[in-house]
Amino acid sequence: MPSDLSRANLRFTHGVSVVGATGAVGREVLRVLHERRVPAGKVRALASDASVGTLVPFGEDDLVIEATTPENIQSAPVSIFAASSEISKRFGPAAAAVGTVVIDNSSAFRLDAGIPLIVPGVNGGTLNGASRLIANPNCSTIMLVVALEPLRKAFGLERVIVSTYQAVSGAGLGAVAELKDQLRTVLEGGEARPRFFKEPCAFNLFSHDSEVDLEDGLNVEERKIIAEAAKIWDDSRVRITPTCVRVPVIRAHSQSIVVELSRPATLVEVRSAFAHGKGITVVDDRVNNSFPTPLKASDQDQVLVGRIRVDPAERPDPEEKYKRFCFFSSADQLRRGAATNALDIAARLGLLPG
Amino acid sequence: MPSDLSRANLRFTHGVSVVGATGAVGREVLRVLHERRVPAGKVRALASDASVGTLVPFGEDDLVIEATTPENIQSAPVSIFAASSEISKRFGPAAAAVGTVVIDNSSAFRLDAGIPLIVPGVNGGTLNGASRLIANPNCSTIMLVVALEPLRKAFGLERVIVSTYQAVSGAGLGAVAELKDQLRTVLEGGEARPRFFKEPCAFNLFSHDSEVDLEDGLNVEERKIIAEAAKIWDDSRVRITPTCVRVPVIRAHSQSIVVELSRPATLVEVRSAFAHGKGITVVDDRVNNSFPTPLKASDQDQVLVGRIRVDPAERPDPEEKYKRFCFFSSADQLRRGAATNALDIAARLGLLPG
Repeated sequence: MPSDLSRANLRFTHGVSVVGATGAVGREVLRVLHERRVPAGKVRALASDASVGTLVPFGEDDLVIEATTPENIQSAPVSIFAASSEISKRFGPAAAAVGTVVIDNSSAFRLDAGIPLIVPGVNGGTLNGASRLIANPNCSTIMLVVALEPLRKAFGLERVIVSTYQAVSGAGLGAVAELKDQLRTVLEGGEARPRFFKEPCAFNLFSHDSEVDLEDGLNVEERKIIAEAAKIWDDSRVRITPTCVRVPVIRAHSQSIVVELSRPATLVEVRSAFAHGKGITVVDDRVNNSFPTPLKASDQDQVLVGRIRVDPAERPDPEEKYKRFCFFSSADQLRRGAATNALDIAARLGLLPG
Repeated sequence: MPSDLSRANLRFTHGVSVVGATGAVGREVLRVLHERRVPAGKVRALASDASVGTLVPFGEDDLVIEATTPENIQSAPVSIFAASSEISKRFGPAAAAVGTVVIDNSSAFRLDAGIPLIVPGVNGGTLNGASRLIANPNCSTIMLVVALEPLRKAFGLERVIVSTYQAVSGAGLGAVAELKDQLRTVLEGGEARPRFFKEPCAFNLFSHDSEVDLEDGLNVEERKIIAEAAKIWDDSRVRITPTCVRVPVIRAHSQSIVVELSRPATLVEVRSAFAHGKGITVVDDRVNNSFPTPLKASDQDQVLVGRIRVDPAERPDPEEKYKRFCFFSSADQLRRGAATNALDIAARLGLLPG
């Protein structure tokens, strides 16, 4: 291959390489790149050796999967990593060292000092041209901090209690296949046999499938939310109480949130803050009982926010100003929670169209 | 029929009539009656005119559905109502007035002064022989107060924040059929068309399908939890913040709960309180990531409690005593949350075997 490489490098000088292009997030990165009118010729799709030579869709075109090698990664000025933490550790720092900007979806570097952890609408201002390795937060963190940002800016945050309803695709395409297979089996009268998850996922839900700390009982997903939000906000004083749960939904996570503000606000003020929030669409129709759902949130980039209400446990206030509010959000965790955020970072750095 | 009635009345003198016997809860009442060895000949299954003459299963036997008439209801010393609020209002007080003990699963009388609202393990002690009309709380309320009771007794409660994951069968058998039909359609590449619910339920979830108050934004399910718990506890000082959500699960509700105790406790104390709690089974295996799920909770009477942990937002305490704890519960809302609770009330009154 070396003789081809120089040609390839030339062709991709102003392009992007996507590592893990066959995965759930990788495919979404390709979709968003296509929507942002990056031509197929500027995109290099890389995956594991087993997939090399196969095709992945890119709009009307297909891309041929190439090997995940330093040369292929570094052939573009920016590389989106959407593979495992192991792959990110193995290839990310090396690519960054030779000048490719690596935007990493894995959890490998998120909490490393000196590695920016970025959600453009929240802390994108802290980005500067010096960073060559930039971490993309966890999907649950991204949708949470996007939804909270208007409240944080306007009123400050003291406490966030969040229970999640997370789609199986967050665990990869194998999990989606398992949910569908199990449903077919159960609908035909059979019994679901878990393989990918430890628990059956058809007509069931379960505590998030990440490791649980034996000391404090937090699972890794919950730990990520707490630590990543603190880093993104550069503020570890906000008290976060997360409970992460996997539900039999294919796509888009939801979150039931109770928030305690630093400064009291009226419902009108809170609603208005959400309505003007970056990347937020308010879906809050009490008359028709229409609020955010995973289906409404799927295949688009907005975090849907609704069920906005004063915490019913608040004591009535004559000025109708309160500190505690409840709301519910849904967002496509593969797009808003991963692909779009990564590509927004690249856009902010002027490396790709926004 | 009048000539048959005297014979029937005789036969059912020490029996039970079940109003709404063809519904999701009614069928469960029959199942639990059979498990408690009430003979088929002592059970009278009543439903709407359309179902009269059809059969409902009762163990190995079938029962013939009879009409919902005052005579049929009152032919037994105790009647379990598992139909609509309208049916309860139409027939319940009249039956109670002539001496039949009516245990009502509907929401018709739950908040009426003078009508006991009973969860036997929580406030069963307030029952006395004088009550002829007794209300069974909402399923979400029952599983919540059962799970909280050991903490309330041992440490007192200040605040309860609960997000629910509610099975579609809580909305009746039509909802279960809709979920299955929609899943079959979507798995074959079609599109889910909601009929029973306003939102598609296949691979989706949505805010609870009860009416939303235009002023405070609470839906009826959330309002029930707040008002019913206060009545059961005879204590409206506990601040409750509920968010009720419907998930694509057939059977058994789950709840993600954050509780603030009145008196601080250690994790060991909280865990021990749950372990000794009435009607509670602790499922809390951090090593194997095994916690309560709807499937584990289905077809039995225990409220499963797990993910018991100190709220990670608590400041470290040298004595390891805390006020805020998180946990997760699952319970079969048709059994534990309805049929079993109603029949436990009858058992407590000596009207049926426990």
